[in-house]
Amino acid sequence: MSAAASAATRVHVPLGDRAYDILIGHGLIARAGGEIAARVKGRKAAIITDANVAPHYLEPLTESLATAGIKATPVILPPGEKTKSFEPLMEACDQVLAAHIGRNDMVIALGGGVIGDLAGFVAGIVRRGVRFVQMPTSLLSQVDSSVGGKTGINSRHGKNLIGVFNQPDLVLADSDTLQTLSEREFRAGYAEVAKYGLIDKPDFFEWLEKNWQAVFAGGEARIHAIATSCQAKSDVVVADEFETGPRALLNLGHTFGHALEAATAYDSRRLVHGEAVAIGMVLAHDFSARLNLASPDDARRVERHLKAVGLPTSMTEIPGDLPGPERLMEAIAQDKKVKDGKLTFILTRGIGQSFIADDVVASEVLTFLKGKYPG
Amino acid sequence: MSAAASAATRVHVPLGDRAYDILIGHGLIARAGGEIAARVKGRKAAIITDANVAPHYLEPLTESLATAGIKATPVILPPGEKTKSFEPLMEACDQVLAAHIGRNDMVIALGGGVIGDLAGFVAGIVRRGVRFVQMPTSLLSQVDSSVGGKTGINSRHGKNLIGVFNQPDLVLADSDTLQTLSEREFRAGYAEVAKYGLIDKPDFFEWLEKNWQAVFAGGEARIHAIATSCQAKSDVVVADEFETGPRALLNLGHTFGHALEAATAYDSRRLVHGEAVAIGMVLAHDFSARLNLASPDDARRVERHLKAVGLPTSMTEIPGDLPGPERLMEAIAQDKKVKDGKLTFILTRGIGQSFIADDVVASEVLTFLKGKYPG
Repeated sequence: MSAAASAATRVHVPLGDRAYDILIGHGLIARAGGEIAARVKGRKAAIITDANVAPHYLEPLTESLATAGIKATPVILPPGEKTKSFEPLMEACDQVLAAHIGRNDMVIALGGGVIGDLAGFVAGIVRRGVRFVQMPTSLLSQVDSSVGGKTGINSRHGKNLIGVFNQPDLVLADSDTLQTLSEREFRAGYAEVAKYGLIDKPDFFEWLEKNWQAVFAGGEARIHAIATSCQAKSDVVVADEFETGPRALLNLGHTFGHALEAATAYDSRRLVHGEAVAIGMVLAHDFSARLNLASPDDARRVERHLKAVGLPTSMTEIPGDLPGPERLMEAIAQDKKVKDGKLTFILTRGIGQSFIADDVVASEVLTFLKGKYPG
Repeated sequence: MSAAASAATRVHVPLGDRAYDILIGHGLIARAGGEIAARVKGRKAAIITDANVAPHYLEPLTESLATAGIKATPVILPPGEKTKSFEPLMEACDQVLAAHIGRNDMVIALGGGVIGDLAGFVAGIVRRGVRFVQMPTSLLSQVDSSVGGKTGINSRHGKNLIGVFNQPDLVLADSDTLQTLSEREFRAGYAEVAKYGLIDKPDFFEWLEKNWQAVFAGGEARIHAIATSCQAKSDVVVADEFETGPRALLNLGHTFGHALEAATAYDSRRLVHGEAVAIGMVLAHDFSARLNLASPDDARRVERHLKAVGLPTSMTEIPGDLPGPERLMEAIAQDKKVKDGKLTFILTRGIGQSFIADDVVASEVLTFLKGKYPG
């Protein structure tokens, strides 16, 4: 192993007795055993993964763990959002218990956001909590869901409604795993990277405008973008671990985005989460300009950059018919409770100057949305 | 309402930002609305209860909550240990979400240990945690399971293997609800009361020897016994919330007890938990005497008191056939992991002088058990 291969960028998440490291770099799956053994006492692991990811990474990970004296049992679930439900949760808990995972042993999540959310929940409830290692293999999960401790499954009443806050003991983000992502998946994850710049890091956004091609190409620029994103998320999580205040900033672009995802029935052929967030971020900047909070030039700048990387930036780019603005507004009202005709929104005063506004007038959002429909 | 009726004994559990009060007294169900409204912000509640308890207390509780401006939705589950499993958990989560319980709203557990364990788990995972109020209606749950934050369900791999640590926001122990318990249920709960004296409160054990008839009769002696038990449990939980050390003392009598419960296939007609603990506590004192740690007189004193209140104190009192000592030893080894022929046990140097012994020789336990079989 060369010196370059063994150097990983480290982001520390200082959450007191729940503090942990995020390591970002090349070849981390092959080095996982050593990094984990140095931090987790137990010598038994259940690797929760899905049938898409397992063929690529399960064997090298299992070998690396074995080298470090850790015996691993695989728990392979079906890929896709439907795995975030009660039956797979029950099945995974059962398999983890059958593998005799004790409280000092660990559950390892090897996969994207779905696997991370489910495995984190399993790790939080088996024996009232065992150790937990996140090994995110998609850009979206490396920069977003694997950091911060939100875990859970969906309910027929909505997404992520059942779960626990469970911080991992370690996050290993191997940037090499992103090579197997499709362009579209990578771009979707990139929307969340850009989001951190737009929340409160104008310099990072400017850096992305100049260096996005290098980020897409891989190498050091990509690792820098991932590490900066993890650091940004860590800062927000440390300020508000249980989401009672400023953590809501992470929802920039997400209120419009969730409504668009609902409007397209979560059909990933039409729209994936990151694409919805990209359109939502442009809408949030446009709406802020409409309220005279930000300059329209900033909204155009956001649109220009996201368009440059190949992300959709307008509702009109979504294939197929969309429901009318009133229906979209209903979805927004369901996501954010409306109180006395007002709702909470993440707005902005410009690039990297977003804030939580809790007095947004629902009728003004509707008027704004009507203007975004063609014709 | 008279002044006497409104006075409740308060035990505070000082767990930092998870601190809470336990109120013990008469008429607390009728006063629940006011006590809860003073401590919990939300004005919506889901009352999780079972079909045995609901006819007695659901209506007065719902009325009391309504008077305080809290709208309650009942979630009525089947009674019995089988309710501590995945399907009822899923069903209860669904009903709590259907009742639009938000993060500042609450789940109320109205019932015995099964309901408290399940409802606490539900409250811990719906929306990654909503507020939680324990209203235990059995002596066992008032002095044991409603305090300390252990929640969960059973798995085919064992009891309580899936759950979370979730401290309640308030415990309301209405001593009037104990009037509807059978003598046998009350006695079983009393075994855990006596346990607190035997762990580290010799004066309390002596008080129980003199006053147990008043405790069984109800009134102030009963409230004193419950409050002293809650205080004792609180002290242990505060010292070791997540059970990494001294909390194990609460298992006095439980290692033998669990083995006997397993040996009788958890058939409550033959043996209930408290009865198993009573026999287990006598065995733990006898075994400690056999190891020359304690005087045999102390073991006889424990036996005498538990016998006086009507609890079984010997394996020979269990109706039906028991498996042989080797099978019992296997159950013990499964409960406590055996390492190099040694296991961890709660032993004692005398009344109120129990301690954690992590080097008990398995073969000595077996020899001891063989001597306890008739013939």
